[in-house]
Amino acid sequence: MKNQDLILKPIGVIHSPFKDADGTPIQPAMAQGAEGTVEVLPEYSEGLRDLDGFERIWLLYWFDRSCEAKLKVVPFRDTEERGLFATRAPCRPNPIGISAVRLISVDGTTLRIADVDIVDGTPLIDIKPYVPGFDVFETTRNGWLDRNITDRQSADARFSRGSEKENNGK
Amino acid sequence: MKNQDLILKPIGVIHSPFKDADGTPIQPAMAQGAEGTVEVLPEYSEGLRDLDGFERIWLLYWFDRSCEAKLKVVPFRDTEERGLFATRAPCRPNPIGISAVRLISVDGTTLRIADVDIVDGTPLIDIKPYVPGFDVFETTRNGWLDRNITDRQSADARFSRGSEKENNGK
Repeated sequence: MKNQDLILKPIGVIHSPFKDADGTPIQPAMAQGAEGTVEVLPEYSEGLRDLDGFERIWLLYWFDRSCEAKLKVVPFRDTEERGLFATRAPCRPNPIGISAVRLISVDGTTLRIADVDIVDGTPLIDIKPYVPGFDVFETTRNGWLDRNITDRQSADARFSRGSEKENNGK
Repeated sequence: MKNQDLILKPIGVIHSPFKDADGTPIQPAMAQGAEGTVEVLPEYSEGLRDLDGFERIWLLYWFDRSCEAKLKVVPFRDTEERGLFATRAPCRPNPIGISAVRLISVDGTTLRIADVDIVDGTPLIDIKPYVPGFDVFETTRNGWLDRNITDRQSADARFSRGSEKENNGK
């Protein structure tokens, strides 16, 4: 088992209409087309070639304003506490988010995107093409989400830095 | 733009039948059911609760044996050089991979998985549930992959550490 630190460097920043987690869509599928931009650092511009052929892209990013890691959380779409790894909550041991957003255009190192579920100013870690042949799977069992307890579409502040008192998971 | 280092700590390790990149399936969809295990560190066991309800899970992991970052690569399923961010190649500025593998069982901190496209011993960074309502999108344009030049199912050594000479991208 490897215990060394692994070092990431932001490759850019994500801009969106959402200044805080409170009110930010939970997922791209619930973002009702909300638009934003990705500003990639100029030294990575060459790596963006051919990206404009893809309709959708994965953004990997750092949850820089989420609270500290918890191992039990009440997720946005449930009313019971769940194991963190069975949720997409941001307060993770390694706070990395993944979102498949729609790519509208690439202009130099600026990407226009839609279906954004990311807080403004979030550090960008990686971009990958979304490929249905790689990323689409049918499943029949989807854990606690099959209960469909709440139909919440946007976040509240429960996982924001400084709001630990609102969620007494570990 | 934030320039600080972001620190990850492995939360476990992934085991698979694939000892080197050469011969490892390119994606879970091409892994023909290959089985493996995930050993999660005991301090994270509480976070695995409720995971067994999900048929498929995202693993995020560190490409610990891929070559240094390149910004142009010839991807496995093409014959032309492409911008790195328009590919899923492992030699990335932040070498994080994502794979939606099938979850067979959870036994304590050991997960049995299938459709594994990951090299044995790879450090695990995160686990998230795969949720069709969050992760499935139809797309009509899929960039260079629409050309369908090669139908390669498994990797070769072109992105392995020490094989930079075989691929003269940046």
